[in-house]
Amino acid sequence: MLWKNLTPNDQRPTIMLGRGDPTEFPSFQTTPAAVEAAVDALRSSNFNSYSPTVGVPQARRAIAEYLSSDLSYKLSEDDVYLTSGCTQAIELVISVLAQPGANILLPRPGYPQYEARAAYEKLQVRHFDLVPEKGWEVDLDSVEALADDNTAAIVIINPSNPCGSVYKYKHLKKIAETARKLGILVIADEVYGHLVIGSNPFVAMGEFASIVPVLTLGSISKRWIVPGWRLGWIVTNDPNGILIKTGIVESINNCLNITSDPATFVQGAVPQILEKTNNEFFLNIKNIMREAAEFLYEAIEAIPCLTCPQKPEGSMAVMVKINLPLLENVVDDVDFCLKLAKEESVIFLPGVVVGLKNWVRITFAAELPCLEDALGRLKDFF
Amino acid sequence: MLWKNLTPNDQRPTIMLGRGDPTEFPSFQTTPAAVEAAVDALRSSNFNSYSPTVGVPQARRAIAEYLSSDLSYKLSEDDVYLTSGCTQAIELVISVLAQPGANILLPRPGYPQYEARAAYEKLQVRHFDLVPEKGWEVDLDSVEALADDNTAAIVIINPSNPCGSVYKYKHLKKIAETARKLGILVIADEVYGHLVIGSNPFVAMGEFASIVPVLTLGSISKRWIVPGWRLGWIVTNDPNGILIKTGIVESINNCLNITSDPATFVQGAVPQILEKTNNEFFLNIKNIMREAAEFLYEAIEAIPCLTCPQKPEGSMAVMVKINLPLLENVVDDVDFCLKLAKEESVIFLPGVVVGLKNWVRITFAAELPCLEDALGRLKDFF
Repeated sequence: MLWKNLTPNDQRPTIMLGRGDPTEFPSFQTTPAAVEAAVDALRSSNFNSYSPTVGVPQARRAIAEYLSSDLSYKLSEDDVYLTSGCTQAIELVISVLAQPGANILLPRPGYPQYEARAAYEKLQVRHFDLVPEKGWEVDLDSVEALADDNTAAIVIINPSNPCGSVYKYKHLKKIAETARKLGILVIADEVYGHLVIGSNPFVAMGEFASIVPVLTLGSISKRWIVPGWRLGWIVTNDPNGILIKTGIVESINNCLNITSDPATFVQGAVPQILEKTNNEFFLNIKNIMREAAEFLYEAIEAIPCLTCPQKPEGSMAVMVKINLPLLENVVDDVDFCLKLAKEESVIFLPGVVVGLKNWVRITFAAELPCLEDALGRLKDFF
Repeated sequence: MLWKNLTPNDQRPTIMLGRGDPTEFPSFQTTPAAVEAAVDALRSSNFNSYSPTVGVPQARRAIAEYLSSDLSYKLSEDDVYLTSGCTQAIELVISVLAQPGANILLPRPGYPQYEARAAYEKLQVRHFDLVPEKGWEVDLDSVEALADDNTAAIVIINPSNPCGSVYKYKHLKKIAETARKLGILVIADEVYGHLVIGSNPFVAMGEFASIVPVLTLGSISKRWIVPGWRLGWIVTNDPNGILIKTGIVESINNCLNITSDPATFVQGAVPQILEKTNNEFFLNIKNIMREAAEFLYEAIEAIPCLTCPQKPEGSMAVMVKINLPLLENVVDDVDFCLKLAKEESVIFLPGVVVGLKNWVRITFAAELPCLEDALGRLKDFF
């Protein structure tokens, strides 16, 4: 709808701040180390075959080691299941949990792939609120009120897409304790893991796995800026063996037996990608994003029709509220985004897509001049 | 089970003839043109982004052109949907057809991924027979007897996995006419398209699309010997627009919206792969396979406990019947394969896996010395 609403003869470039894929920008190119790792794997001829359904052992081992550095215990390669991006990780986890009558607790706002897959698998969805005034923390009272005996899991996205928040250790621990009390799993979507630009450090949910079993979802898509490489994972953080006892691990294995896998040579490249990427690459990307996020936050403060309750601290996006009474002829967020696309060739994601009507999600993983241009047009629009 | 039954201290190499992945053999390496196409796509930085859910346009266009050369009409890029290998193509097609109460006609013997996905999606399966005495042709009378108002489609695998047969133009036309009479779609699994080593040429089922709409499934996995690259497709062959009218096309699009895609840079490499691969590569692979198939067929004729009703004409495998009365202490095909693994370190696929009890499926996409070794051991086993 937004694309079709663009004005074709607008001489200005269209500015797309609607999704978490900054690969179009020259500043957001992946590290040559990752490209060369993939080239080496391709040329080695060792990775043209079908992959084991759980993933190639050396990639599983490397990811176990990589993720263990965020934890006070060691993951084993058997804890790691490779998937075709985090998209397939979500697909598999929802499929595993979708028993007849079951329900799942999803955040509002959230990431709509969960809702789409749950609808497909006929898994009932119950939404709990993230509270903008409290740094988008989980409203744990509403979680307790929503859960019942048929609740299978709660999904926590941290760093948060779409909110841009990063949860503190204490809050994550409270979430784990609540899940334990309710007897449900935690699905920790950490696809934006380590993409942190504020003062809160990234804390892996798996750190609380002795309180409650955690299925961690992740990928190289965001941190390495290669969403098109389609390499993700599901990791079992489960020192008490609950996921084995309850059949979840067997069910993950069964699902992987009848689905496609990430390209074998991309898997084969993983050890070298993880080993050869230097910290400068990560720091540079975070610096660009921090500068962009700060500019965006301040520029929005200067536009009366928009309010950003929380300065972005991580991920690639932030939620911004539309003050409708200050706008003429704008009925809701979709209308706002349609008119902004038509009049100013700027694309934001309507909040309703991520569960919050009359908000918009704006991606700050963009180059500063581009954001400056977008915010200038937004001011004109207002 | 077979793997676990191998004798660990057997000094001889294990010979694996159980699956259609010959990438372990030095003679079955892909063409450098394909590798360099993927390297170029990787290094271009143009294909690190998320892919459109239907696939990148230049890859869709190239595949439409490639497949049109088998047809008397032109496919358009809009007919082509890229998938993560043929595995995901099967997944999507089954998912699209799995309406409540619907059923699908599958060949026996066949490819078990269809049965697995149908079970997952609760799509009822009805098996029609392939007749070994008639070159594994479809028993069309049994097809007519099986179909009813709830039958959605018939699956035809040509060149045939697991049979190794290649259907003649006349037989394919009869299948199309039968499907038209029954009012059902044809799913044409042509993942082994062009891998033909006998006298019957490969005829694309899409050639009969004016009789009945055809969904063609394929991939680069087999012809280019890169099953791990995970690049497949679904193609609509539908000059009468029936797949649009019946909502099948919309349903394919909807499914693609909520699933993962093949790696974008592998898609980006497709035009160059198709353009730069020279015919010598294909001819060489087919020559190796022809020689292997002929040896296998003759060697099996000399072993009384096995019968191969039809010399392989294509794909990578052939079905061989076990004459149980001639074997001591072998109760069925699984037992046969378990004992062969244990005593001789040779792995065949038990026929029951592909729907035919007391047969085995043997892959002939292997190097000749390896097949000679395997058949020698088989003789000893007998």
